[in-house]
Amino acid sequence: MIWNEARECMSRDQMTDLQGKHLVKLVGYMYRNVGYYRKKMKKLGLEPGDIHGMEDLGKLPFTTSEDLQDTYPNGMFAVPTSKLVRYGTLDSVSGAELIVGYTQNDLNLWSECMARTFAMAGLNKNDVIQIAYEPENWAEGLGLLSGVEKLGATAIPVPADQKKDLMSSIRKFHMTGIIGTPSYLMYLARMIEKKGMSGGVLKAAVCGGAFWTDKTRKKLQDAIGIKMYDIYGMDELMGLGVAGECRCQKGMHVQEDYFIAEILDTETQTAVADGMLGEIVFTTLQKQGVPLIRFRTMNITRINHEKCECGRTSARIDRICARTEDIVYIRGNSILLYSIENALTELREIKASYIVTIKKQHGLDVVEVCIESKRLQELLQSDNGESVKHRVEAVVGKIIGMKPKVYIHEGQMTRLYNRRKVTIIDERRF
Amino acid sequence: MIWNEARECMSRDQMTDLQGKHLVKLVGYMYRNVGYYRKKMKKLGLEPGDIHGMEDLGKLPFTTSEDLQDTYPNGMFAVPTSKLVRYGTLDSVSGAELIVGYTQNDLNLWSECMARTFAMAGLNKNDVIQIAYEPENWAEGLGLLSGVEKLGATAIPVPADQKKDLMSSIRKFHMTGIIGTPSYLMYLARMIEKKGMSGGVLKAAVCGGAFWTDKTRKKLQDAIGIKMYDIYGMDELMGLGVAGECRCQKGMHVQEDYFIAEILDTETQTAVADGMLGEIVFTTLQKQGVPLIRFRTMNITRINHEKCECGRTSARIDRICARTEDIVYIRGNSILLYSIENALTELREIKASYIVTIKKQHGLDVVEVCIESKRLQELLQSDNGESVKHRVEAVVGKIIGMKPKVYIHEGQMTRLYNRRKVTIIDERRF
Repeated sequence: MIWNEARECMSRDQMTDLQGKHLVKLVGYMYRNVGYYRKKMKKLGLEPGDIHGMEDLGKLPFTTSEDLQDTYPNGMFAVPTSKLVRYGTLDSVSGAELIVGYTQNDLNLWSECMARTFAMAGLNKNDVIQIAYEPENWAEGLGLLSGVEKLGATAIPVPADQKKDLMSSIRKFHMTGIIGTPSYLMYLARMIEKKGMSGGVLKAAVCGGAFWTDKTRKKLQDAIGIKMYDIYGMDELMGLGVAGECRCQKGMHVQEDYFIAEILDTETQTAVADGMLGEIVFTTLQKQGVPLIRFRTMNITRINHEKCECGRTSARIDRICARTEDIVYIRGNSILLYSIENALTELREIKASYIVTIKKQHGLDVVEVCIESKRLQELLQSDNGESVKHRVEAVVGKIIGMKPKVYIHEGQMTRLYNRRKVTIIDERRF
Repeated sequence: MIWNEARECMSRDQMTDLQGKHLVKLVGYMYRNVGYYRKKMKKLGLEPGDIHGMEDLGKLPFTTSEDLQDTYPNGMFAVPTSKLVRYGTLDSVSGAELIVGYTQNDLNLWSECMARTFAMAGLNKNDVIQIAYEPENWAEGLGLLSGVEKLGATAIPVPADQKKDLMSSIRKFHMTGIIGTPSYLMYLARMIEKKGMSGGVLKAAVCGGAFWTDKTRKKLQDAIGIKMYDIYGMDELMGLGVAGECRCQKGMHVQEDYFIAEILDTETQTAVADGMLGEIVFTTLQKQGVPLIRFRTMNITRINHEKCECGRTSARIDRICARTEDIVYIRGNSILLYSIENALTELREIKASYIVTIKKQHGLDVVEVCIESKRLQELLQSDNGESVKHRVEAVVGKIIGMKPKVYIHEGQMTRLYNRRKVTIIDERRF
C-alpha cells in the first residue's frame, strides 16, 4: 500500500515545483523569524526575493551542527516558545547537547512520515506493531508511536531493554510488526532461535537508529523469516522517518515533499551525480519549530531519482555508509576509506600491514601503497614479492578505479602511533 | 483554573444522575460484550434491566485482579482488538502480568483527566512541564504527556533516571512544572540544595506513582520552595489521573464523571461512611477497551463528598495509606495496622518488642499487647513495669479507641519467624 499516493508518486517536475514553492516560503519564514540565519544570508548579499524555486537552492548558505551550538539553546527557533508543544534534547552529530522544539504541526508532519514508512514496509491498520524504543530517547519513541496511530494500527510501546518474553508477546498480542534497533532485532532473532520456533504472525520489521550492514540484515532476515526494512532519520531534522524502505529494498524513499535531499561532494560542496557518494544535506521544507536550510548531516550516501518498481517516484538513498571524515575523492571519484581498508584486511594470506598514501603529482591524484611486514624476508622468499604486489595492486585498483603504485618497504619500519593494519594518509590535505 | 467546570463543579444530585445514566449504559455494554462478566451477572440472577441508576450499583458483582488473571490476556476486552490503538502490559495489584488495551476514546478520556489534574495544580497552557516517567513504564508516561498536550502547555519528556543536569534544564527551558515520582522529586530537591539555589521559575510539582507521606511532602516542599500535588491512578483503571489534588491540598478530587468511587468495609464489602477508612472500589464509567465494574483496588483510603474550598464539588480521597491486608476492624472501627506499629516503635525509651493480638471475647473484640524484652529484669527494675504498661496502654488505646489489655511477658520468649519489633496477630481470622 502507498500511504499518500498523491505525494509519493508525483512526477519529478511536479515534485520540483512543489519543493520550489515551499522553499520560497521557507526562506522568507526563516529570514523573518531567525535572526542568526538572516545574518548569514545578508553576509552573502542574499535576500528572500533572490530565491524563486529549486534552481536557487545552491545560493543558500548551509546550516551546520556548529550553527546549532552557537545559537544554543533556542537561537534557531523560528516560533515563540509558547507555540511549541514539546521540547527534546539530543546529542548532535558533533556530540554537543542540543535542544529541539516541535509545534503541533511538526508532530503531525512526523506522524505522516512515519505512517508512510510503516506502509512501505507492508504494514496497515490491521497490524499490531511493537515500538521498541531506546529508553534514553523517549522523543524518538513518541514519533514512532504517532506513526502507528496515524496508520490506524495498534501499538505496543515497550522499552527496548525490557527483558520480557518477546516471543510470548508476539503470541499474546498477535504482534505482526516490530520496529527497533539492529541490536534489539538481533535479540529477537536469538529468542526465535533459542525457542526453535518461527516468528509467528510477524510480517515485517523496521530497523534503524544504529549502523548495520546488508550482511547483518540477511542474517536477521534468515533467522526471523521476515523482511527487515531500513529507516533513516536524524533528531535535528525530525527523527526517524525522513526516509524509509519499500518492499523492493533498493534504497530508502525520501519524504521529498517535506525534505529536500542534496548529495554534495565533501570537498567542493557541489552536487554529485546520482549514484555517486557524497554528504547528504537536508532542507526541512515544512517544519515550523526549528526548520533547517541545507543542514550538513555529515552522513555519506548515494541518491537515485529513478522511479522505483513499487510505484513510488520519490528519490531513494542508500543506507548511510560513513561520515564525511571517512570519504576521499580520487580523480573525481568518491572513495570510502574503509572500503580500501576492508579489501586489504581481507588479504589474509599476506601477513603485512599497509600505508596507503594519496598524493598530487603533476596536478593528478596518485595512490601509493606501502606493504610492511615484520617477516619481510619470509614474505619475499615465499613469494618473491611480485605476486604480493600484484594482488595488492589488483584489490586496491578495483576500488579506486586506477592503478596504485605498490612497493614493499625494505628499510626500517615506519613508526606510526595507534598503528592499525591499514593506515591511510591523504597528503593533499596537508 | 478549573479545567472543566461543568463536570468538576456540578451538584451532587446532578453527578449522581450523570453517573447513573452512564452506569446503566455500561452494564448493558459489558453484558453484551464481555462473556465472562455476563456469566458473573447471570450467576447472581442479574440482568442489565435490573440496573436503573446509582441506587442499584451495590447489586453488581465485583471485578478483582484474579478475574483479570483468569481471563488473561484479553477475556475482559469489550471491543474487538482491531478497535484498540494501543496495548500495554502491567503488573497487577496481585503481582501477575496483565494486558490492557486502549481505544482512541480511552486515550482521549485519559488526556482529559490529566489536563484537569495539571490545572488543579495551577498549571496552564503557558507552562513548560517536565514529564519524568519511569523508563520501564512507558504507557504511564504517554498518558501524562497527552495531558500536557491537552492542556496546551509544552512538554519535556525525559526518562526519570536520566542523569542530566536537572537545574540547567529548569533554566534552559524555563521549566515551570514537573511531574515525577517522590524519589525523582527528592533528586530534584537535592540538586537545588547542592547548588544553593531556588527552584527557579518552578511553580508546581505533581507527584505520584509511589508511596510517600505528608512528612516527605513537607520536606520536599520546603526544599524546592513550591507546592507538591498528589495524584492517584492505577494501570488497571487507566493510569495516573483518576484523581488529583487542588491547591487546597485536602485530598484528591476523583474524576467522578469517569470513575465511580466507593469506599467499602474490607470485611463486609458494604459502604462505610465518609471519613472512615476502607477499600476503594472503582467503576470505569466511560472506558471502552477494558471497562471495569466495581474493581477491587485493594487500596485503603477515605472519601469526602463535601464541596472543596477550590470550588470543585467532586469527591476527594486521601492519599492511599495501605492495602487491604493492612487494615483491621476493631469494634466497627477501621484501624491501620501500621498505625499501631508506628506508635509502639516510637516508644524508644522502652527497649522491647510487642505482640498485639486481636481476639473475640463474649462476642466482643478485645486487644492484648504483650511486651517482651530480653532485658526484662532491667525494665522491671528501672520502672517497676507499671509505668511501661501504662504508656503502652495509652498509645495503643488512643489508636484503637478502647483500652487494650497490656502485660509483660515473663516466661520464655515467644518464638516468631521474621521477627519484627511489632507483630500483630488477628486471631479472629483463624
